[in-house]
Amino acid sequence: MAEDGERAARVALTWLAEPGNRMVWSLVEECGASEALDRLVRGEVESKAIQAAVRAYEADLEPERLRELTVGRADQLGARIVVPSDEEWPRRVDSLATLSLEGNGRILRDVRPPLCLWVRGAWPLGETLERSVAVVGARAATAYGTHVTGEISYGLAEQGWTVVSGGAFGIDAAAHRAAMAAGGRTVAVLACGLDRPYPAGNSAMFEQIAESGLLISEWPPGAEPLRHRFLIRNRVIAAATVGTVMVEAAARSGASQTLSRVLALNRTAMVVPGPVTSAVSVGCHELLRERPEAILVTGVDHVLEAVGRVGEYLVDPPRGPTHARDALDEESALVLEAVPRRGTASPEELAAKAGLDLRTVLRRLSLLEVAGMVERRGTAGVALTRSRASPASPHQDEPAPSDRHD
Amino acid sequence: MAEDGERAARVALTWLAEPGNRMVWSLVEECGASEALDRLVRGEVESKAIQAAVRAYEADLEPERLRELTVGRADQLGARIVVPSDEEWPRRVDSLATLSLEGNGRILRDVRPPLCLWVRGAWPLGETLERSVAVVGARAATAYGTHVTGEISYGLAEQGWTVVSGGAFGIDAAAHRAAMAAGGRTVAVLACGLDRPYPAGNSAMFEQIAESGLLISEWPPGAEPLRHRFLIRNRVIAAATVGTVMVEAAARSGASQTLSRVLALNRTAMVVPGPVTSAVSVGCHELLRERPEAILVTGVDHVLEAVGRVGEYLVDPPRGPTHARDALDEESALVLEAVPRRGTASPEELAAKAGLDLRTVLRRLSLLEVAGMVERRGTAGVALTRSRASPASPHQDEPAPSDRHD
Repeated sequence: MAEDGERAARVALTWLAEPGNRMVWSLVEECGASEALDRLVRGEVESKAIQAAVRAYEADLEPERLRELTVGRADQLGARIVVPSDEEWPRRVDSLATLSLEGNGRILRDVRPPLCLWVRGAWPLGETLERSVAVVGARAATAYGTHVTGEISYGLAEQGWTVVSGGAFGIDAAAHRAAMAAGGRTVAVLACGLDRPYPAGNSAMFEQIAESGLLISEWPPGAEPLRHRFLIRNRVIAAATVGTVMVEAAARSGASQTLSRVLALNRTAMVVPGPVTSAVSVGCHELLRERPEAILVTGVDHVLEAVGRVGEYLVDPPRGPTHARDALDEESALVLEAVPRRGTASPEELAAKAGLDLRTVLRRLSLLEVAGMVERRGTAGVALTRSRASPASPHQDEPAPSDRHD
Repeated sequence: MAEDGERAARVALTWLAEPGNRMVWSLVEECGASEALDRLVRGEVESKAIQAAVRAYEADLEPERLRELTVGRADQLGARIVVPSDEEWPRRVDSLATLSLEGNGRILRDVRPPLCLWVRGAWPLGETLERSVAVVGARAATAYGTHVTGEISYGLAEQGWTVVSGGAFGIDAAAHRAAMAAGGRTVAVLACGLDRPYPAGNSAMFEQIAESGLLISEWPPGAEPLRHRFLIRNRVIAAATVGTVMVEAAARSGASQTLSRVLALNRTAMVVPGPVTSAVSVGCHELLRERPEAILVTGVDHVLEAVGRVGEYLVDPPRGPTHARDALDEESALVLEAVPRRGTASPEELAAKAGLDLRTVLRRLSLLEVAGMVERRGTAGVALTRSRASPASPHQDEPAPSDRHD
C-alpha cells in the first residue's frame, strides 16, 4: 500500500488537471505524486491553467486537510482509492503511457494512464479486469441493439468474462444488466464522482453493479459528468480490457472514439453490424469500412474467438441447412439432378442429360438407390424415379425441386 | 458476324457439354467451333460423357439440321445468338479464360467463357454491360433486403448504370424491378433456355425486362433450370459486370458462390450487412469476416464510389447531427462546458473548472458571446450564463445538457 500521503496527492492532482494530462503524469513518474503536487503548489510549472486550479483549491492542498478529504471521503462512500503501487491496480491501463494519437486536440494529446482509481465493490480490480471485454454503444439504442448486446454480454458472463462499459442508457445499461442476469461480474467506468453516478435514472443499476461487480472512476467524489470527461474516460475502457465490442453507434459518436483508442492500443476492436437503414448502425459500418483491423462480429462466439487465447474457443463456420444431398459427390448430384420429377428415365438418358458417361451413371445410381434417393421401377431394371423423400435444395437462389416448375 | 455454321456449332457444343467446360472451350479456341464440333462428332475426344451426348443428339448434329434448329429457333423466339466475333459480345466475360479456382469440383474447374449467348431485347449486349453492376442475393429475402436492394438498384439506374441479376424471387426480382422503375436498363442472366425463363412466377417481369433491357442465357431454348446450372451461370454474372453487390445471403448460398467468383476475377465485391439476427444476412457477414477484399456498402453512394472511375463519385463521410458547438475549438468547448446551467460564474471560476488559464478563458468568452452561446449578466461584466439557445450534445453516450441532471 502506498502511504496515505502519496495516495491523497494522486487524488489532489486530479483536482488540478483532468486525468490523462501528459505533463502531470510525467511529473509524477519522475518524482512521485507528493513531490509533484508540491511543485505544482509552489508554482514550479508553466501551465497557467494549473496555477489557476491551485489557487482555487489552495486551502484543501495542505497535507493534513488533503488526507482528510480523500481517505475520509472514500471511507464515507464505502469506496477505496487504488493506485499503481497497489496489488489490485489493473496493469493493462499502464499501456496508455506510450499511446500516441494523431491530431492536436487536448483530448487526443492527453491520454496518459490514470493517476488513481476510485473503486466501489468487493472484487479486486486487477483480477476482475484480467479477462474482460468492453461492450459499448449508443444511448439511443434500438431494440435490435439492446437485444444483441444482451446476447453477447450474457454469453461473455457465462464464460467467466467480466463485462465493462460506461453507465449510460441504451447499450451500456443493456450490457451491464445482461451480464448481471447471467451471474457475471460487471464493471462500470464512470466519467464523474462515485458519489453521483451519472445518469441518475440508472441509480438502481449502479447500486446493483456495486453489489455484484465494481463501480470505478478516475474522478474524485463531487466531480460532474462534464461532456469532455466521457471522451477522457473512454481511453480507460479501451485500455483496461482485452477487447471492445461496439454494438450500435451513430456517426462520429463517443463509441467510435473509444474504438479508435482500442485500435491505437492494439487491442481487439469488434463491431456488430446492423441494418443499413438504422442511424445508430452508421458508426459501426463506417468503422468497418475505414478500419480493416476492426473485426465484424455477429455474436458471442465471434467475440470469444477474437479475445480468447489461441485455440481456447473454436467457432464452426456457419452452414446452410444440411441435407442428405449436400453430402453427395458432384457426379452423384448431377445424376440425381437429371432424374425427372415425374416418370422415369433410362440410364442412357441420364448420362446424356448429366453430361457423364454411362458407367459412371450406373455406379452412381447404385449409391443413390442405397441412399434411398432414387428407386428402380419396372422389370427391365433401367427405369428410375426420384423417390419422394428427395430433399430440397439448400441454395437460396436456385430452384428447390418443389418449386422448379411453378 | 460469324457465319451461321460457326454460330450454330457453338450452340450445338452447349448441347454436348455444359457451358464453361474447359476441354470444349480449349478445343474451340484451338480450331474454331465447327471443327471442334466435327471432332467431337467423330469421337475424337476421350470424354465418355461427350460421346454419350453426341449419340443422344446425333440426328440433330447434321450441319443443315443444326442451322435450322438454332438460327430458326432464335428467330422464332425473337432472340439472337451472340458469339465472340460479334461486335456486341461482352468482352469482359473473356477474363474467365484465365480464371482458376481452388478445389477439384467440376463446377470449380469448368469456368471458361461462354461459347455463345442467347439474347432477347433490343439493346446491344456489350454496350449495355459496359457500365453494369450485379445485384444478387437470397430468394428468401426479407422486407429489409428487398428495400435496400430497391434503393441501390434504383440509384444505380438513375446514374445510368445497368443492373444485372438472375431471375429469382427475392433480391434478384427486387433489383430488376427497382432499376426498371427508375427507367434503367436491366439484364437478367438465366440458367435455362430463353423460351422458359425460370421461375414462371416472374414471367411478367421477364417480359418487361425483354422490353426495356435484356434477357440472356448461355443455354439453348428448351434447357431446364437444373440445379448445377445456377452455379455455372453465376460466373457470367460475376465476369460481365464491373462489380457485384450481395444484399442478403444465407450461409453457403449461391450468392456467396457468385461473390467468390467476383473476388477470383478481381472484380469489386460489395456486401450489404444486415441485422445479425437475420438468417439471410449470415452469408453476408461471413463473407465480410473471411474476405478482407470484400467492401461493406450501406447504400448506392458506396457502390458508386467502388465501381466508378477514380474521382467520378466522391462520398462524404457520414456526420453526426451538426451543432454550432461542434464547430468550436477545444478550448472554447471546455469554457462553454464550465458555464453553469443555472446562475452565473466568474471567469476565474471558469478557468479553474475548465483547467485553462484566465487569459485564454477571457479570450474564448468573447468569442462565445459573439456566437450568442453565453451572455454577460450584471454590471461588473464578469457574471455569465449559458444562453438558452445552447445546443445539445451530438455524442450518443454523453449527457446532453438537457438530461445531465436527471
